[in-house]
Amino acid sequence: MPDVPWAPAASPGQLLRLLLDGVPRTRAELANQTGLTRAAVRTRLDALQGAGFLTDGVITVATGGRPAGRLAFNAGARTVLAADVGASHATVAVTDLAGGLLASRRLALDVATGPERVLGALARTWREMVSEAGLSAVSLAGVGIGLPGPVEHSTGRPNNPPIMPTWNGFDVPGHLRAEFGVPVLVDNEVNLMALGEHAHSFPGTDHMIVVKVATGIGSGFISNGVLHRGAAGAAGDLGHIRVPDGDDADCGCGNSGCLEAVASGSAVAARLRAKGVDAHTSADVVALVRAGNVEAGQAIRQAGRTIGEVLAACVSMVNPSLIVVGGDLAAAGEMLLAGVREAVYRRSLPLATENLRIVPSRTGEVAGVLGAAAMVIHHVLSPAVVDQQLG
Amino acid sequence: MPDVPWAPAASPGQLLRLLLDGVPRTRAELANQTGLTRAAVRTRLDALQGAGFLTDGVITVATGGRPAGRLAFNAGARTVLAADVGASHATVAVTDLAGGLLASRRLALDVATGPERVLGALARTWREMVSEAGLSAVSLAGVGIGLPGPVEHSTGRPNNPPIMPTWNGFDVPGHLRAEFGVPVLVDNEVNLMALGEHAHSFPGTDHMIVVKVATGIGSGFISNGVLHRGAAGAAGDLGHIRVPDGDDADCGCGNSGCLEAVASGSAVAARLRAKGVDAHTSADVVALVRAGNVEAGQAIRQAGRTIGEVLAACVSMVNPSLIVVGGDLAAAGEMLLAGVREAVYRRSLPLATENLRIVPSRTGEVAGVLGAAAMVIHHVLSPAVVDQQLG
Repeated sequence: MPDVPWAPAASPGQLLRLLLDGVPRTRAELANQTGLTRAAVRTRLDALQGAGFLTDGVITVATGGRPAGRLAFNAGARTVLAADVGASHATVAVTDLAGGLLASRRLALDVATGPERVLGALARTWREMVSEAGLSAVSLAGVGIGLPGPVEHSTGRPNNPPIMPTWNGFDVPGHLRAEFGVPVLVDNEVNLMALGEHAHSFPGTDHMIVVKVATGIGSGFISNGVLHRGAAGAAGDLGHIRVPDGDDADCGCGNSGCLEAVASGSAVAARLRAKGVDAHTSADVVALVRAGNVEAGQAIRQAGRTIGEVLAACVSMVNPSLIVVGGDLAAAGEMLLAGVREAVYRRSLPLATENLRIVPSRTGEVAGVLGAAAMVIHHVLSPAVVDQQLG
Repeated sequence: MPDVPWAPAASPGQLLRLLLDGVPRTRAELANQTGLTRAAVRTRLDALQGAGFLTDGVITVATGGRPAGRLAFNAGARTVLAADVGASHATVAVTDLAGGLLASRRLALDVATGPERVLGALARTWREMVSEAGLSAVSLAGVGIGLPGPVEHSTGRPNNPPIMPTWNGFDVPGHLRAEFGVPVLVDNEVNLMALGEHAHSFPGTDHMIVVKVATGIGSGFISNGVLHRGAAGAAGDLGHIRVPDGDDADCGCGNSGCLEAVASGSAVAARLRAKGVDAHTSADVVALVRAGNVEAGQAIRQAGRTIGEVLAACVSMVNPSLIVVGGDLAAAGEMLLAGVREAVYRRSLPLATENLRIVPSRTGEVAGVLGAAAMVIHHVLSPAVVDQQLG
């Protein structure tokens, strides 16, 4: 039997959902679309307007007709606080309900100092930004955070995160809800990077993989237009897939031959050091490639091929129409992408690749923080949450 | 911005959707749940009853209250014709709207004789079965077919299917719609096997992979409770993923080292022949294993390990909570499964496997045909299609 999620028909929240496409509508049009009486539509719209979710849109006059007031979604009704936390820095932002950036800032921090200090720094920064942007009078809708490790999305608690052990099991939502009194959603940064690319640069793409190549390697996967988190929130973990014909480089996970141990920024730098080239980070590798260093160029192209071998398996499994490659090491540009394309197109069946594009990140450094905002917006504008709020 | 699919609120089709959970409800309960007036509920229910979709359920008397007539979904209102077509045989069935088997039959046929002959044989068989089961008076809802090759699901046309080249691009839905006058949906058999396992044996499992190990190797993938077909309908194609450390066996696809070239029923039989054991098909291999042939047992366990190596990559990518292993070669039982489990648990991270079960098919040989019926039922009971039919 098909799944049967139950939803109250034509509640205020569902009327608002209709209007999220941005098209202004008259009360009569909304009555027609929903099958509700005009009186019922009026009551629901009044509730939405009372909460600030609607603006009186343009008054248009159809030829020969009467003027009709149109109502439109008011994306400025609430603000969203978002942050994309990395190992040594965070991107912090304030957005509106359409995901538009109202303010953003890059903050140096050390995630290993633990959740209280890091979340405290985020909270101070958000408060400053809201104040400086003159947004103190606008109600807050919610808070969204991306963290550099596995997160149990349903509870918002980090799950044995390797680079931030003191965060394990910490109640991130509880901590921030006590301070801000709004919903707080948490996910890992690569899932949010995928959400951000999808929401802002590829909204019509139903099946896509967003790969982040940096100190580690991970991905986020959009299936049927929705983020696929998997049973334990661990989906997209490309970094520990075994590389075909890989060298047996030891990996921090306890296995050997993992993609991350062979083709991450750290692995490429280590390989270059072994050849006497001075490189320690993704940034060093990228700088060498840009300066024309031949060995760095070859190493990064080979890393691209290796990543492509693993992506080829993912392409066979999930048949995306788009792969987006981002992360520090992707700043090396075409060298990495060329290697990825070479391996994916060599190892995949024609049906799976005839309409497959492999492109660099289009949303760039703000993909993660925009994804954090998109996650919150999706939640707070869902009909059930809107209806609950309107009481 | 979140996707905004538009649906008319509380149409007859949406009322019916509420009732698909099988729970009988009074008119008053339905009015409460939908926010519609009782008069509006009555109009819509009359339309659904007129079409036969509802039965008058039990009349219950609450303590001290008035008796209230409850309405329930009538799964017997329509029949569904379903078929799971293999290379040399088909499973043909008639079901009700809950996916319950009313009749089923196994039919010998040669798919290579082309679409007109095969579809003609299916149509004759369905007509006989409907007549013999005394179902001629029940309206037909739709027809669902699984085919052993890639199918463009949106058009129902096979897309360069290797073992049935004469079917390429054939308008299967058009051909059968001309005969039966109802919606005809087509997909590849492995997707439908996954739908069938999900619908009938694991309805609460949101993320699962169903692997078929037979002459070839393929899989179907359920993401967020829905079949993930991918951008070109090619998702789940495990058979052509490159095996890590694989031998370089040539594959029919033009590459080498593909899973199918190493671990399918045909590949295992070929390996046994090279050792002087007389085996040509999956069935031969299974018979040898059951007879205690040591070489066959070792070969099938090794095939399981190799399949597990590839599944480990899929587990990292999609983090399912369940892998179901079916197909001819799975009839060898625990030998194959033990190999699969060994490799998956060795190569995957703890977070991805702590709640992962790897089990044999529970729905068995009828998984595909039940999946074909489930695909049709999901379509014909969707609110939009019900409303169109009543309108």
